[in-house]
Amino acid sequence: MGKKNKTAITPTREDDYPAWYQEVIKASDMAENSPVRGCMVIKPWGYAIWENIVRQMDIMFKETGVKNAYFPLFIPLSYLEKEAEHVEGFAKECAVVTHHKLEPDKENGGLKPAGKLAEPLIVRPTSETIIGESMAKWTSSYRDLPILLNQWANVVRWEMRTRMFLRTSEFLWQEGHTAHATEQEAKKRTLLMLDVYTKFVEEYLAMPVIRGRKTPSERFPGAEDTTCIEAMMQDKRALQAGTSHFLGQNFAKGSNITFQNEEGKEAFAWTTSWGTSTRMVGGMIMTHSDDDGLVVPPRIAPAHVVILPILKKGSDNREVLDSAQSLKDALEQKQFHERHVEVEIDNRDIGGARGWDWVKKGIPVRVELGPRDIEKNCVFMARRDESKKQSMNREEFIDQITDVLDNMQDNLFNRAVNRRKENTFEIDDKDQFYQLYKKSKGFNNGAFVMSHWCGSDQCETDIKKDLSVTIRCIPFDSPTEDGHCICCGNASSRRVLFAKAY
Amino acid sequence: MGKKNKTAITPTREDDYPAWYQEVIKASDMAENSPVRGCMVIKPWGYAIWENIVRQMDIMFKETGVKNAYFPLFIPLSYLEKEAEHVEGFAKECAVVTHHKLEPDKENGGLKPAGKLAEPLIVRPTSETIIGESMAKWTSSYRDLPILLNQWANVVRWEMRTRMFLRTSEFLWQEGHTAHATEQEAKKRTLLMLDVYTKFVEEYLAMPVIRGRKTPSERFPGAEDTTCIEAMMQDKRALQAGTSHFLGQNFAKGSNITFQNEEGKEAFAWTTSWGTSTRMVGGMIMTHSDDDGLVVPPRIAPAHVVILPILKKGSDNREVLDSAQSLKDALEQKQFHERHVEVEIDNRDIGGARGWDWVKKGIPVRVELGPRDIEKNCVFMARRDESKKQSMNREEFIDQITDVLDNMQDNLFNRAVNRRKENTFEIDDKDQFYQLYKKSKGFNNGAFVMSHWCGSDQCETDIKKDLSVTIRCIPFDSPTEDGHCICCGNASSRRVLFAKAY
Repeated sequence: MGKKNKTAITPTREDDYPAWYQEVIKASDMAENSPVRGCMVIKPWGYAIWENIVRQMDIMFKETGVKNAYFPLFIPLSYLEKEAEHVEGFAKECAVVTHHKLEPDKENGGLKPAGKLAEPLIVRPTSETIIGESMAKWTSSYRDLPILLNQWANVVRWEMRTRMFLRTSEFLWQEGHTAHATEQEAKKRTLLMLDVYTKFVEEYLAMPVIRGRKTPSERFPGAEDTTCIEAMMQDKRALQAGTSHFLGQNFAKGSNITFQNEEGKEAFAWTTSWGTSTRMVGGMIMTHSDDDGLVVPPRIAPAHVVILPILKKGSDNREVLDSAQSLKDALEQKQFHERHVEVEIDNRDIGGARGWDWVKKGIPVRVELGPRDIEKNCVFMARRDESKKQSMNREEFIDQITDVLDNMQDNLFNRAVNRRKENTFEIDDKDQFYQLYKKSKGFNNGAFVMSHWCGSDQCETDIKKDLSVTIRCIPFDSPTEDGHCICCGNASSRRVLFAKAY
Repeated sequence: MGKKNKTAITPTREDDYPAWYQEVIKASDMAENSPVRGCMVIKPWGYAIWENIVRQMDIMFKETGVKNAYFPLFIPLSYLEKEAEHVEGFAKECAVVTHHKLEPDKENGGLKPAGKLAEPLIVRPTSETIIGESMAKWTSSYRDLPILLNQWANVVRWEMRTRMFLRTSEFLWQEGHTAHATEQEAKKRTLLMLDVYTKFVEEYLAMPVIRGRKTPSERFPGAEDTTCIEAMMQDKRALQAGTSHFLGQNFAKGSNITFQNEEGKEAFAWTTSWGTSTRMVGGMIMTHSDDDGLVVPPRIAPAHVVILPILKKGSDNREVLDSAQSLKDALEQKQFHERHVEVEIDNRDIGGARGWDWVKKGIPVRVELGPRDIEKNCVFMARRDESKKQSMNREEFIDQITDVLDNMQDNLFNRAVNRRKENTFEIDDKDQFYQLYKKSKGFNNGAFVMSHWCGSDQCETDIKKDLSVTIRCIPFDSPTEDGHCICCGNASSRRVLFAKAY
């Protein structure tokens, strides 16, 4: 916990942002690439963060009446053929099961696929087709509605270029699917789930987001309205942290989800779908971490405090070890939101590397405890979001721990809000817009730009082609005002959010 | 909630036990077969039971220091080739991914597999090979040990004959894998996890189990010792509810998990593995359910109480609805072990079917609440494990609810213990042994029989061939005593547990 000139992570964010990102994951022991192309091994420190995400989101979903269910991993090929419009994107990139056993390969040795399936099976890129079929089966009367389902599962989309957490061939996610008797109710549900996502991402991941709707060209296939939350990463790129779709009756028509309404007439249901994934973990890393490694918001951290007892080789360290244990016990009595404070004790004899390990893992609070601290009834503590360290009275530290954690949580959120504020601009001049993005690269990947847009696909496409900049969303809180499209100069009534995106 | 002569489930257990089992699942709305061969859709009521199982077991695993991680869905074919011994069983039945995209089929229309993989991928039948490789990478010094990992995941084993929860091609499970520096520590861990399983299955699923070790022929491939818990179903068959394996250094040698020990010498680690699956849900169904449908032990139930307000068409039912809501609120203030009491209110206007729906779903307590009950400050309640119904003072009911639930939990466990006691016999005569099993079928599928066994594979095989009866385990608490093998008559020092099994 000493050196200050060198950083724990090489390269730094400024030097090479993508390499820094990989290095943060490695140094924090969150995950690593697996021998299977595009799939990662999520190690305990990384998986514990995902578990905390799942636990909390699951509570929030259930508070809105959603129930979990589980659908098969495999989708018959014919199901994807039916949904021609949806399949186009996924068809390019999916794992196809063609055989159901292995047998000895007499020619080449080893094993070879055998037992060819009459119909190939696709490893689910989403479960929507099969959930649609189930909903159709379960729905006969208005009394069966709404159906409010969610599934936590692994899905596979064959990716050529992968990056841990952000884009992997297999990833973990949740997909919610709801069916309603009325359009109004489905629209309300779409926004309700976006609210849940917003609350979770802002209050737990400490990532401020901009809420809005996608332009028609960026909508989910089959959706009438795609709403989303967009967050700014430290390199000023946008990351879409969650989407919630109003599907109108399109999906119900495709899956034949009909019901008899209160008037006794057959009608198609109105449906929604909404999803988030392990990608959120990537967003969390890129929002808060620094050149010393991972920074984890306390409300989502696998553990809140690590105690590092200062042990002397060859001495009787019992007093220090006992004191560490009793400090842990006292801290763990404290309730921190939905959990109690969770404390690790690290007794490893590996010198200064021990403290740095925990810096790189991003644990919110580190505490050193040696014979002299015990004598003075003190602890020597450091917060991951601040560089200063301080000696604190032990009881005071115990009393204040949850305040410290709350304060760190707020600090991370506010830092991200300020960063976004400093890097968001209203631009009305096309040259200025182009210059900003043309010179952007690496860590300084432009900015969030609020500019007018006339609504034409052409302008959207031109900007994307020229600058790799997309309209992230039409923010809900973007006021109506007269202006001119940043691309073609035609009249526009509203600014939209432009950015480079992950 | 009236009729008593007819049963809610047809056929009954006596009439056709396997058909009864499927019908209980259907009538309780737990799960259904999916369009994908051998895979099921787990519906919210069934999935909530699984979620409660996962939540509680996960807490118990973590209390022993285990951490969760996540490994890829796919295993390269070459990994299975390496583990020749293990692969034999799985190779017969696995899903093989051979292509990574779909493209239009110009000859036949529709889509066809494209993008052939250089090396086929297997959908994991277990993650052990890939976990072994990771452990090898993560272990260099004795300081890195023990490694205590668990994974909750879906796995696939291609099954020809499937039965919901008991045997499906895709199923949900947990697999634990640990690596240790010493043999003693690994052996201790093997038994510790069997203890966790025992405690969970007995205290939550209310299924009494017999703990023991498998005979050499029934051991997990590669294991030096396979320990297990065996439960008796109502048809007197055994169901293996969990296994915990001591793998010696076999697995470490196969995966090259080595470490430098405290003396600075390179050594192979000692490993264990242990698993349970959605099969436990099948066991729970077959242990407690009756001819009126599912019976769920309160500690694992998706909800504990359903309130059925008695509503009158065309009247103002506000008083009844308010009273139901305030009863729900009062009950949900009560803590029932790790959860609070969970209450459903069912306002559907579907006549008597409403009460029967909840009987068939196995909810522990049903409460009817009408204007007359409210006037008398009473509720009319029924327990799922008893046929009597009773009027109770409302406050008394609220006060006693957790006792009622605990009492039902105990009652279910004790019933199962007694059933097992009544159907477990010590047999020393071969003819008697053969007669018992030869005449067994359907609901009366024999019994648990404790008989002497000489230890020879041949005797075990003969009995299996003749009667489809296997040695379920050598119970830990089976005392040493002189006797003669039930098959060959040779000397034996211990009785073992025989039964037909799922």
